[in-house]
Amino acid sequence: MRIVIDAMGGDQAPEVAVEGALDAASEWPDVDIILVGDQDRIEPLLTKRPSNLSVKHASEVIAADDEPVRAVRRKKDASMVVAGRLVKEKQAEAMISAGNTGALMTTGLLVIGRIPGIERPGLAPMIPTLNGKGVLALDLGANMDAEPEHLLQYGIMGSIYRNKVHGLEKPRIGLLNVGTEAKKGNELTKAAYELLEQASIHFVGNVESREILQAECDIIVCDGFAGNIMLKTLEGAASAIFSMLKTEFTKSLATKLAASVLKPGLKQFKNKLDYTEHGAAPLLGINGLVLKSHGSSDAKAIKNAVRQARTALQRDLVGAIVSEINGK
Amino acid sequence: MRIVIDAMGGDQAPEVAVEGALDAASEWPDVDIILVGDQDRIEPLLTKRPSNLSVKHASEVIAADDEPVRAVRRKKDASMVVAGRLVKEKQAEAMISAGNTGALMTTGLLVIGRIPGIERPGLAPMIPTLNGKGVLALDLGANMDAEPEHLLQYGIMGSIYRNKVHGLEKPRIGLLNVGTEAKKGNELTKAAYELLEQASIHFVGNVESREILQAECDIIVCDGFAGNIMLKTLEGAASAIFSMLKTEFTKSLATKLAASVLKPGLKQFKNKLDYTEHGAAPLLGINGLVLKSHGSSDAKAIKNAVRQARTALQRDLVGAIVSEINGK
Repeated sequence: MRIVIDAMGGDQAPEVAVEGALDAASEWPDVDIILVGDQDRIEPLLTKRPSNLSVKHASEVIAADDEPVRAVRRKKDASMVVAGRLVKEKQAEAMISAGNTGALMTTGLLVIGRIPGIERPGLAPMIPTLNGKGVLALDLGANMDAEPEHLLQYGIMGSIYRNKVHGLEKPRIGLLNVGTEAKKGNELTKAAYELLEQASIHFVGNVESREILQAECDIIVCDGFAGNIMLKTLEGAASAIFSMLKTEFTKSLATKLAASVLKPGLKQFKNKLDYTEHGAAPLLGINGLVLKSHGSSDAKAIKNAVRQARTALQRDLVGAIVSEINGK
Repeated sequence: MRIVIDAMGGDQAPEVAVEGALDAASEWPDVDIILVGDQDRIEPLLTKRPSNLSVKHASEVIAADDEPVRAVRRKKDASMVVAGRLVKEKQAEAMISAGNTGALMTTGLLVIGRIPGIERPGLAPMIPTLNGKGVLALDLGANMDAEPEHLLQYGIMGSIYRNKVHGLEKPRIGLLNVGTEAKKGNELTKAAYELLEQASIHFVGNVESREILQAECDIIVCDGFAGNIMLKTLEGAASAIFSMLKTEFTKSLATKLAASVLKPGLKQFKNKLDYTEHGAAPLLGINGLVLKSHGSSDAKAIKNAVRQARTALQRDLVGAIVSEINGK
């Protein structure tokens, strides 16, 4: 299987992508890795030359603050766009990028294309939960004005993903809502509730955002706007509370001593809530496997994304979604 | 000025309502307080008989789990509905209830009625912020499917409220969104952005939910669905993190000792984030003052709601909104 890595995406490109690719190539000899990006910057970083790793030159780079649609349309030789083209042309089965999220969604849509029958792809990161298992949330930003049918498709795709990639037998699907009763919410969630209830998936009903850290479901479906509000509120609250703890801990010598006793446990908990540690987010609904790694990914995160892609390819995730959406 | 209190609403009704009303009556002789509810249960609780406090009997009660519209329509003699009728009939200028939120919004709409020109009233609680000043957020649940014009009216009403009740000279209004750039968001926020930008209010642009605890604005406007998702995510995250802290603190004798040093500071911080401590939420856009106290309000919270109502009446909040909406 062939996996393309956008070497120029992310805060520490191309160093971490190259290091992660080298590690992955030596760990999984059955994977062929193609690093796409500026050859002059990548080649000097190749401390080894494994036979299952190659470099494809791309002269342009999409920056973190580039306007996504314009960048993908104009920068035809950007590393991300070239990677997408390799997937489109079946020269690779999967691509991984830690670059501009909007541009990656646009590359998925415009360069690779949707699975026939899927109206709107959804970005599906794992949200950390207190029990460590996590909830797959989609859509978290690809589709700001969702229709009920999109939410149904998110439920189906999320269910297949968690089954194929995480091995869950019967993944529980929840609908993000403002109350647990069936009639709660806005026009979108009321209509989506009915569709999800009738589908042959394990729909467990509405889930309130208050309960998201308690892992009451394995997949939570929502429109990209509400999902993004939820995720960023979580991040903001966690970061504010931990920074306040730091202030409290350093107030006096006594609190500093007290804090040193508590720190190891808190550090562990903080890591548990750090969603950058929870793997790459698949862009589900694209006719090829697209994985978004966090912009601050290190080499280990890139290697883990390769692991994720490898599992998804072995279990034929995209093929399973195609079959399910098109009624087998 | 006459303020009605729904004595039967809230988790500890009618005890806390009666106690809070007694305290308020003795503190502010210029306020006439009317307690509405079951006379047989209220009378024995009246330890004093101030001349500016009276009781109006109501034979029914709207329960916390009653379906709001049905309850308000059928229970004509419910304490909440009777209180609303007193405001409607100008026998009082304000009402306070700690009861069923949906039923109170319905009472506002169906019993008291909207201000002419206001399409959708908005529920506007204060969200706690790290600097202790708080952000008024609306709408947080009255209007699940908002139009851009509703968000504009929320901005105007919120601005008047923070000016009149909190004395802010030039309140900063933010739009809850998924990014700070003008073009971000869904169809609703893109259209609302343009309206807010053109209005004669101090609009400071999009605000991300990640920044909500940093108080980048004095008012944040949003549709009721997204606002509710934000508020409940905040509550859920804070409660999960503090319960985790408790677990870490009680792990061993050493952590227990360490925790005892840190607890006072953390307790203070936790209170800062407790949105039940931030006063009652006005239902803005109703043709009369309606304040929603938290269901778990104690007597002090009820007394504080009377203080809030008194300030709003002294500054003629509702009159100011009427003038502004109808072009003076």
